Amino acid sequence: MQVWRVNVRTQTLNVEPAPDSWARLGGRGLSARILLEEVPPPCEPLGRYNKLVFAPGLLVGHMLTSCDRLSVGGKSPMTGGIKEANAGGTTGLHMTNMGIRALILEDQPAKGSPEGPWWVLHLSLKGARFEPAQDLAGLGVFETGRQLLARYGNKVAISLIGPAGEMRLFAAGIQNLDKDRVPSRIAARGGLGAVMGAKGLKAIVFDDTGGQKPPIADLQAFKAAQKRFTKNTVDHPQTKLYQDYGTPAMMRMCDGFGGLPTRNFSSGRFEGTEKISGEHMRELLLARGGESETTHACMPGCVIQCSNVYAGADGKAIVAPLEFETIGLLGSNLGIDDLDTVARLNWEVSDLGLDTIDTGAALGVAAEAGLMKFGDGVRALELLREIRQGTPLGRILGHGAAMAGKVLGVLRVPVVKGQAMSAYDPRAIKGTGTTYVTSPQGADHTAGNTVRAKLDHLDPKVQAAASRASQVSMAGFDTLGACIFAGFGFMVEPAVIPDLLNARYGWQVGPDILQVLGKETISLEREFNRRAGFTTVHDRIPEYMRTEPLPPHNAVYDVPEEDLDGIFNW
Amino acid sequence: MQVWRVNVRTQTLNVEPAPDSWARLGGRGLSARILLEEVPPPCEPLGRYNKLVFAPGLLVGHMLTSCDRLSVGGKSPMTGGIKEANAGGTTGLHMTNMGIRALILEDQPAKGSPEGPWWVLHLSLKGARFEPAQDLAGLGVFETGRQLLARYGNKVAISLIGPAGEMRLFAAGIQNLDKDRVPSRIAARGGLGAVMGAKGLKAIVFDDTGGQKPPIADLQAFKAAQKRFTKNTVDHPQTKLYQDYGTPAMMRMCDGFGGLPTRNFSSGRFEGTEKISGEHMRELLLARGGESETTHACMPGCVIQCSNVYAGADGKAIVAPLEFETIGLLGSNLGIDDLDTVARLNWEVSDLGLDTIDTGAALGVAAEAGLMKFGDGVRALELLREIRQGTPLGRILGHGAAMAGKVLGVLRVPVVKGQAMSAYDPRAIKGTGTTYVTSPQGADHTAGNTVRAKLDHLDPKVQAAASRASQVSMAGFDTLGACIFAGFGFMVEPAVIPDLLNARYGWQVGPDILQVLGKETISLEREFNRRAGFTTVHDRIPEYMRTEPLPPHNAVYDVPEEDLDGIFNW
Repeated sequence: MQVWRVNVRTQTLNVEPAPDSWARLGGRGLSARILLEEVPPPCEPLGRYNKLVFAPGLLVGHMLTSCDRLSVGGKSPMTGGIKEANAGGTTGLHMTNMGIRALILEDQPAKGSPEGPWWVLHLSLKGARFEPAQDLAGLGVFETGRQLLARYGNKVAISLIGPAGEMRLFAAGIQNLDKDRVPSRIAARGGLGAVMGAKGLKAIVFDDTGGQKPPIADLQAFKAAQKRFTKNTVDHPQTKLYQDYGTPAMMRMCDGFGGLPTRNFSSGRFEGTEKISGEHMRELLLARGGESETTHACMPGCVIQCSNVYAGADGKAIVAPLEFETIGLLGSNLGIDDLDTVARLNWEVSDLGLDTIDTGAALGVAAEAGLMKFGDGVRALELLREIRQGTPLGRILGHGAAMAGKVLGVLRVPVVKGQAMSAYDPRAIKGTGTTYVTSPQGADHTAGNTVRAKLDHLDPKVQAAASRASQVSMAGFDTLGACIFAGFGFMVEPAVIPDLLNARYGWQVGPDILQVLGKETISLEREFNRRAGFTTVHDRIPEYMRTEPLPPHNAVYDVPEEDLDGIFNW
Repeated sequence: MQVWRVNVRTQTLNVEPAPDSWARLGGRGLSARILLEEVPPPCEPLGRYNKLVFAPGLLVGHMLTSCDRLSVGGKSPMTGGIKEANAGGTTGLHMTNMGIRALILEDQPAKGSPEGPWWVLHLSLKGARFEPAQDLAGLGVFETGRQLLARYGNKVAISLIGPAGEMRLFAAGIQNLDKDRVPSRIAARGGLGAVMGAKGLKAIVFDDTGGQKPPIADLQAFKAAQKRFTKNTVDHPQTKLYQDYGTPAMMRMCDGFGGLPTRNFSSGRFEGTEKISGEHMRELLLARGGESETTHACMPGCVIQCSNVYAGADGKAIVAPLEFETIGLLGSNLGIDDLDTVARLNWEVSDLGLDTIDTGAALGVAAEAGLMKFGDGVRALELLREIRQGTPLGRILGHGAAMAGKVLGVLRVPVVKGQAMSAYDPRAIKGTGTTYVTSPQGADHTAGNTVRAKLDHLDPKVQAAASRASQVSMAGFDTLGACIFAGFGFMVEPAVIPDLLNARYGWQVGPDILQVLGKETISLEREFNRRAGFTTVHDRIPEYMRTEPLPPHNAVYDVPEEDLDGIFNW
């Protein structure tokens, strides 16, 4: 496996063997090691010393169910710390077919600006080409995807940015084609789309023509382990739930815990939850038919297929997929109880190339600042148009909730390290809150959600252990390239993980490999952040969440600070 | 001497004796100690746990020339660290007449918002009254001053905020009446006006009726020392220079060093310097006559009188005073070479209650972002009107240069710790640059300017020692309540400082008292910042200033990092 190093100033590619110290890492862990070794942690995230790393996880390449995820990493313009955001889709698979363990984008164009010049970086086994892409400037994500597929053919993988990334907005992500070649799989969080914009790239095309699946050291052992893993996953009760309802199954659950973000995190229960629940969505989509799909795979070979296609009353697709976090942040958090409206907001945010979580949180802050009324979806759509137009207000919102709060003078802003919380209020689901607070990634449920853990989510004393266990596992999964839902299958029989790795790579890793990878990854990330100027002061919940009780449980976030500061003392 | 503690939520005053540990401190040093003891360093600056401290310096009260300055302190919404901003005028004198060593404003109104309710806090020897001030909401600084004087009579001192403070903009300062009762003396930097706004106070009126000058332990010794100090100050050659030209004398000097901010700090020399120089201004004002004054005192008893009244061609005053930093940031930094234009911009910024330095720097960033052309004063005035209207763009700019850079996507932003640099480019005047970088206050020439030091301003190796000496002295002067220009007189015969303090307080402090006070103050401030999450990473120049050469010397800022990190190892 090789490292492909592309300098966007000189427009040159160097293909290098991966150093030994990178050999047992992939995905998030590899990205962290590269960034720590090569990027000065205090550097300007949108400047020439930051790098953007694309790294498929260790298990990517053989269509193991839910295990072909791509990690994208860099210093975040939003948090000022290290950032990894991962996505499903097909980019990871194409990279491994091409033998690329990591793609590292370096430097910045000599004359780059939001007005261009814009480039498509085309990568194939013949090397790298920079192709002019000024004609794509300003285009939305979906039209950009269509045009690139028309230009490069239907077999390539593509990572691309929308107008938000071009404008270097801090909530801009990087979208990837799903198995149906729609650029719907976003490495969403922390502004890596802005970093890609600052590198002058509108898109990266991966053409794996002539490539092949990565070698397997012991094919028989690999197939045996794969079979067990697939069966464990298929048989898991959660799989059926996610097939039927997808992530929106969480709406009722989170509302039930009193932790569903409602009207800028001012309540944990929303009177309109039923109307935007996963159960209601399923009924609606089944009734509407047309282009609706209640279950849909983002990656080839996935047996869970938690995604969906959301169609309007006319049966035409509005957006795909419509996920729980999006419904939480663009729905209940804005006081909106209509799925069609949420779906339209979702399409707009996705087409801009923005993170729905941070954008939804920013709109919630804007509502608190008086720029829209809670529940007013028409006005919310207008505010999203401000982002597309690049107006000052649009830029404020497109930088995410933290920036919106600062500029608009709102103090009730649900962020940690400048990044917006996901759709679990940390006062009611305190383990996930503890992850928000302590993760080197900033507030993010995918860094370690505890909502399914068997514990009292309101008891401050038991959260640190739960958060820690979840954070370590998730950092491990992100290094493997495994989806969070692959975790259900893995947890039935954790020995499958070393079996798969040993069979594929000829290693002899032990049963604790998931924890080993997870701890190593988090340690690398924390070291980067320490050198970037982070201290324990940055591992704190917003002040108002310690003092302002959240209905209906009237809970505050009260996990002891010593639990937070000691969480990674392993 | 007493501490007056006002809770703005309960609207109550407690008068307490000053604790022993505060006894030998005043001004900036006292403010730092109070903040470190009473304010949680990680707190939200605009929330209820921040406090706003008004503290006259140790020598305030007897109209020693240039020694009646007031320090205002709190946690800064702009830097996130400790903040002290000081001002001349009459507030300090009134406080000492009332026996107030420190006024501490605590908590926040139960229902406070930028829309109000607004209050005037009226303080007299009879106690504290909160008087409704909704009628003053939205009024500019100058009209607010007039109305308050009409209401409370001409003998009071007043600290007040303009629309910027009401809107909680991070570049908002706190204005004080000068000796002619014009609210022109601003504690400008770091957004303390926003903190006052968050406390719900449009103004604080100090009525010293029935008060008296603070006691003097040894009147004869005090008068003798005062006489020496006055003579040393009057005789100093710099005094004559500042009487004739005021601070704008620095225009030619700074341009000569190649360090005058020009077009958003992209050059250190401005082709229009002569037209906005102190020499030209003096000629202009002498020719225009009318309300012009080439020399003017901000505090009663000042023999330097470095201020001025700038009148237009019709002889009517446009603004007073027009200072070097303002001409640098709103003039050359915007490519504007016309003093009348700069004066009008200055009036607008001051009437908004904003810091001219950070606002000028923000406009420079806005110009780089394409929102105005350099040299276009009409457009600059329009942008200032956006601030007054509270539009999204206005809020972006009113938060200062750092915020403008982040939101508008500009990387060439002349700030340290989020605060804009003064009118000395750190690449050409590296000692002042070293102060910008290392001061716990963020970039600020008043924290320790080295431009008058006898050294090669371009030699990176000799700057740390010069900056350190200047920073220690300035922290000492800020604790005494002494103007930077009092320093000329003090430096002729430093023994005058202990003589004055010992005579006034009956102390027996030694000849090193200025350094003792300065070091103690800086140490307290650094400890606050450490607890607020600052590390050495925050003591760094912006990335582009290490790599992008500044014409005409093509210098970069290259003071070694070990010099920066060791600067306060005393």
